[in-house]
Amino acid sequence: MISPSTDNMHINSETSTVNGTSHTAYGKNVVAELKKEEKEEAKAVQKLSKEHDIVLKTFRILIADLCQQFGGGHPGGAIGMAAIGVALWKYVMRYAPHTPDYFNRDRFVLSNGHTCLFQYTFLHLTGYKDMTLDQLKSYHSERVDAICPGHPEIEIEGIEVTTGPLGQGIANAVGLAMATKNLQATYNTPDFDVVSNHTWCMIGDACLQEGVALEAISYAGHLKLNNLTVIYDNNQITCDGSVDLTNTEDVNTKMRACNWNVIDIEDGCFDIEAIVDALNQARASTDKPTFINIRTVIGLGSKVAGDAAAHGAAFGTEDVANIKRVYGFNPDEHFVIGKEVRDFFEKIPDRGQQLVQSWEKKVQEYESKYPELGAEFRRRREGKLPDNWEDLIPASFPEKPVASRAASGLVFNPIAKACNNFMVGTADLSPSVNMIWKDKVDFQPPDLKTQCGITGNYSGRYIHYGIREHAMAAISNGLAAYAPNTIIPVTSSFFMFYLYAAPAVRMGALQHLQVIHVATHDSIGTGEDGPTHQPIELANLYRAMPNILYIRPGDSEEVAGAWKVAIEAKNTPSIISTSRQALPQIPQTRRDMVAKGAYVLEEVDDADLTLIGVGAELSFAVNVAEALKEKNIKARVVSFPSWRLFEAQPLEYRRDVLRRHRFPAVVIEPYAANGWERYANAGINMKRFGQSLPCKAVYKLFGFETEPMTEKVSAYLERLKSDEILRTEWVDL
Amino acid sequence: MISPSTDNMHINSETSTVNGTSHTAYGKNVVAELKKEEKEEAKAVQKLSKEHDIVLKTFRILIADLCQQFGGGHPGGAIGMAAIGVALWKYVMRYAPHTPDYFNRDRFVLSNGHTCLFQYTFLHLTGYKDMTLDQLKSYHSERVDAICPGHPEIEIEGIEVTTGPLGQGIANAVGLAMATKNLQATYNTPDFDVVSNHTWCMIGDACLQEGVALEAISYAGHLKLNNLTVIYDNNQITCDGSVDLTNTEDVNTKMRACNWNVIDIEDGCFDIEAIVDALNQARASTDKPTFINIRTVIGLGSKVAGDAAAHGAAFGTEDVANIKRVYGFNPDEHFVIGKEVRDFFEKIPDRGQQLVQSWEKKVQEYESKYPELGAEFRRRREGKLPDNWEDLIPASFPEKPVASRAASGLVFNPIAKACNNFMVGTADLSPSVNMIWKDKVDFQPPDLKTQCGITGNYSGRYIHYGIREHAMAAISNGLAAYAPNTIIPVTSSFFMFYLYAAPAVRMGALQHLQVIHVATHDSIGTGEDGPTHQPIELANLYRAMPNILYIRPGDSEEVAGAWKVAIEAKNTPSIISTSRQALPQIPQTRRDMVAKGAYVLEEVDDADLTLIGVGAELSFAVNVAEALKEKNIKARVVSFPSWRLFEAQPLEYRRDVLRRHRFPAVVIEPYAANGWERYANAGINMKRFGQSLPCKAVYKLFGFETEPMTEKVSAYLERLKSDEILRTEWVDL
Repeated sequence: MISPSTDNMHINSETSTVNGTSHTAYGKNVVAELKKEEKEEAKAVQKLSKEHDIVLKTFRILIADLCQQFGGGHPGGAIGMAAIGVALWKYVMRYAPHTPDYFNRDRFVLSNGHTCLFQYTFLHLTGYKDMTLDQLKSYHSERVDAICPGHPEIEIEGIEVTTGPLGQGIANAVGLAMATKNLQATYNTPDFDVVSNHTWCMIGDACLQEGVALEAISYAGHLKLNNLTVIYDNNQITCDGSVDLTNTEDVNTKMRACNWNVIDIEDGCFDIEAIVDALNQARASTDKPTFINIRTVIGLGSKVAGDAAAHGAAFGTEDVANIKRVYGFNPDEHFVIGKEVRDFFEKIPDRGQQLVQSWEKKVQEYESKYPELGAEFRRRREGKLPDNWEDLIPASFPEKPVASRAASGLVFNPIAKACNNFMVGTADLSPSVNMIWKDKVDFQPPDLKTQCGITGNYSGRYIHYGIREHAMAAISNGLAAYAPNTIIPVTSSFFMFYLYAAPAVRMGALQHLQVIHVATHDSIGTGEDGPTHQPIELANLYRAMPNILYIRPGDSEEVAGAWKVAIEAKNTPSIISTSRQALPQIPQTRRDMVAKGAYVLEEVDDADLTLIGVGAELSFAVNVAEALKEKNIKARVVSFPSWRLFEAQPLEYRRDVLRRHRFPAVVIEPYAANGWERYANAGINMKRFGQSLPCKAVYKLFGFETEPMTEKVSAYLERLKSDEILRTEWVDL
Repeated sequence: MISPSTDNMHINSETSTVNGTSHTAYGKNVVAELKKEEKEEAKAVQKLSKEHDIVLKTFRILIADLCQQFGGGHPGGAIGMAAIGVALWKYVMRYAPHTPDYFNRDRFVLSNGHTCLFQYTFLHLTGYKDMTLDQLKSYHSERVDAICPGHPEIEIEGIEVTTGPLGQGIANAVGLAMATKNLQATYNTPDFDVVSNHTWCMIGDACLQEGVALEAISYAGHLKLNNLTVIYDNNQITCDGSVDLTNTEDVNTKMRACNWNVIDIEDGCFDIEAIVDALNQARASTDKPTFINIRTVIGLGSKVAGDAAAHGAAFGTEDVANIKRVYGFNPDEHFVIGKEVRDFFEKIPDRGQQLVQSWEKKVQEYESKYPELGAEFRRRREGKLPDNWEDLIPASFPEKPVASRAASGLVFNPIAKACNNFMVGTADLSPSVNMIWKDKVDFQPPDLKTQCGITGNYSGRYIHYGIREHAMAAISNGLAAYAPNTIIPVTSSFFMFYLYAAPAVRMGALQHLQVIHVATHDSIGTGEDGPTHQPIELANLYRAMPNILYIRPGDSEEVAGAWKVAIEAKNTPSIISTSRQALPQIPQTRRDMVAKGAYVLEEVDDADLTLIGVGAELSFAVNVAEALKEKNIKARVVSFPSWRLFEAQPLEYRRDVLRRHRFPAVVIEPYAANGWERYANAGINMKRFGQSLPCKAVYKLFGFETEPMTEKVSAYLERLKSDEILRTEWVDL
């Protein structure tokens, strides 16, 4: 008899670790064994209660049917994980299908997202209202409003994060668990645990190979996230064959070396009781995250059981029919969910509503006893910042040259200090990114005493991620996904290393998560570190990526504007791209105009051309315009911090800024030109990688000094006069 | 007395593993201890021979001086690693300063590339001719022809790979060691070991946190690369402070779990003898790669010793002077390398030339005894392919629709089979990428027997990288860097996952390494897998990245052209971007024109517009042109597989293809438009992420069907007639 977990369960016994006995054979061997197993099935099933038996069979057949209808999809993993799902959704997880966004719900992440039918089907069985049987059957259909896409998507009730690209989900789960820790440390009191949820993350063999997951695993162990459980669907199969083709490490020992508890489950296909026991042990862990290594068989019951062929293709009508026959089902019936199965899950929505009501009552009492804390906790749940955050932005800046990374600190440090929504992290570049505020507290396990003398606790909001840029961004997606805008994660690094982080930055954009990325050293002006650290082409990626704001402010005033835009972008990640080197302050810049994407810095009615300046090199355009005057050439100057913001403006505004039908435009930016052709006719840009030289010398080497640029622009205007075709073409100056 | 290693040394004793005793204290504690240490220095130094003592002091002072001259750079790590350098360059590594590209040299990779002065200084001391003292002093100078950039660069004599972005170097080293294994298995005979070099890789604390390194470590253990040694400069300091701020795992246990030998060195600052012993043990390993965990003190001797402040800034003139005083040097003298130190390294070039001569003699004898094998080994060393490789490309293709990923296999499989320069890998997508040739042999340790029944050996050239896209690309850079074009690595995955691999792909481009990346599932046509797997913006990155050929062939004929270009691009990586779905074969496509980047598919003299089609959607442009005829609109059609190749054509050719002064151009490509503005006036492109739907349905959803596209194009032409400004602007259709 397995008891359902309750919200107030506290098991304080130390988590024990069951060492693995011999590993079940997999791959082709397993297929042979399965044939024996099929014969002996009656015996195996006796280990199961009758109702578990029928639930597992129904679930497995349903998955086979759902993949078979359109002849595609990923049946094998979902079928292998059936017993794990029953353990989680029936016995262990605390959630409310009829209040899917219940704040204190356990979070579940399917990091092996291609097995999405596993999750969709349990959402259906446990009573999530949107997930009807009809919707379930939309998997791989042409239905445009389907909620069963090929990988789980955050927009769907009961899905916490979008997954699919392997390794992302487990890092998201680390972020979700960190969010819980931070909110607990901030709002729980000795008498009220208003935040107490656990995070469960399902992974497959692939996630344990991806670098982003390995970074996140190492970091979660460091943080002692005892509220995180990773459940490893160890079926030893990937697309190419058995895992030992590419990975023969001792994963349990590796996890223990990373400060994780490890629990082994030998029979993950049927032994629901053992799985429940392990999950409950994991929830009770007091000191470490838990890794449950569960042996399963991919595509169990099918002819391709235990084989790579079970991973990413339907089994074929004949095999599906055969599974049904062996399981005692009618092979001619499809999508059958019998009454016993419905009954088995029937009470889950009510149980969930009881959880919700009990929690809401608790929060009411909490708000009465702790009115200030209660009000703040409510503000956070509503995703609001303190009202006065805008007032904290400096009204003006010193006139002397200053690096925009330093200006970024001046703008944001007071806001970070005052607004506890922000959790601000860095991938080991604290001295460079200027994100530390006075009296900041580090997010750390409270018992950590580092060699360098720094301590912290879980209420801390400054995060040292280590040299793990990819995990930093993926974990930040998890922090942001905990609840909308309750936590606004800020990441920081050199811009170039947002190429390491790019897959996770993309996932944030895809999920409409507000994450603010603060990137410094954003051009060849970075200098001595050389071409490996000088971004030339990276902005092109982020300018092309949907739903992200890439902003290159030109001086401190524009930095203020960039931060305002980023903080107000509640459904969109931003990248604030700043300079290593000091930048002159330009009197005409305006913080309020950054939100327009581009604006006229210097207007001239009878101009000869428009010069476009950007970010760290905005002053170059101003200087060239000035120098052109000596040649009797009149240049308008446009500051252009963000393409995406500009594209959102009305056509009329965009035409007023660019006036391209009247004047040719030349852009100055030491990045690859690609895309500037939309706004300009010619450009002074980069066509090769940079070079290791001091800032001024590298600008000089590539011709980004006032005199040669002025010459290039005036020569271009001359050429335009004599070559008619030129006006219809882009010209690299 | 330490003996120099010799080329024929064979130590067959089993590698022993020294377990760690208590870890030396680091961080602030160490600074306190150092003050004691300074007092007791005379005693400490007695452990050293007199000549080692003077060499270490000279080296450390030289590093401090080199950083101090321009007040910047990374002195701390290089100073901490001095004794490791002496052990490597004086006693262990087999190399030839006067023949830097000696084929059988040991490879050394500085994965912690910011400590580059460490390597530059040893190159100088051991007699590399280009690395003069004058050049050494160019570190951080404005000298444009300097060979001491801020991170090591492959173009410099004695540098094997460019490093800097952390974690890349160790993955490159895995590739270098794999190259050795493959060449050994292919060319060594029982009586001739013509390839016998070892790969040594220096890493810092950061490399052990980066995902790409963790992927490569796991894979190197799987491959049993006993010819690889990773030397861990364990100074427990990163930019933010002590490593335990972010990483408290048991690294030795983790490495052992990944199938590595582990050797501990407690006193890495002075104990050259112990280091040499460990390095020799590592070279003698018969079964595993070796990890040598060496405790050092960052910035040893300076006031900031053992502190993060020693990492990335010069020490200041006062501290540098003080170090000199304590070490018994004249504080007013700079860049001093005394006679004892010169004498210590004096014989190394001669020793190197002896190695070279002995190896050349061996190869001569080998060529006499094994003329065929010898000739082939020579061809490979010269970076040549067998002469007939082009003849292996099919002269024509079936007319029926075929996925370009399948066509890619048809073209390349016979070449891969016949030309053993190619080592072809996949990140666990063998069933999707079509890179397996008949009778291919896997690159695997010969004793591996996998559950799925696959075996291999080190002469195998098909590489299962596991789900490790980033390491796959970084390891491939190492394979390519072993010797120019001796090995031509091919990687393969879904295009979307080249975002995971992007930092390594960039490093390949920066280093001019020929690596061919085969990407499939390259558009929304990928279908059901949904937006996480549908690239929208990724091509923008690779089209903007310098020195890489991103090619999107439109049908089988263009696939043939793309492969020809990629194979002939000896100094440039390529990405061949292919479709999941079947593509119609277009009669007018021409393989020879792919090299031009773009070409006219259908010419019309009195056209109304030019339609540009690309890759998987090339047929869409052809179909729209056909449909426009019914509206009496005449469209030229241009096929445009590669921007970079087109930009390399003469202006005249480019104008002939585009004829933009005469006709407006419209591009059709379901990617972000950015950059197409250079070649077209309007586009039918993507402005949001894709959606999980079957291929045809997703194209329909986003309007990529002939009818709506034809309507858009004709409406645009109408608008052009009435709106003069429109012709000067880009229009999103």
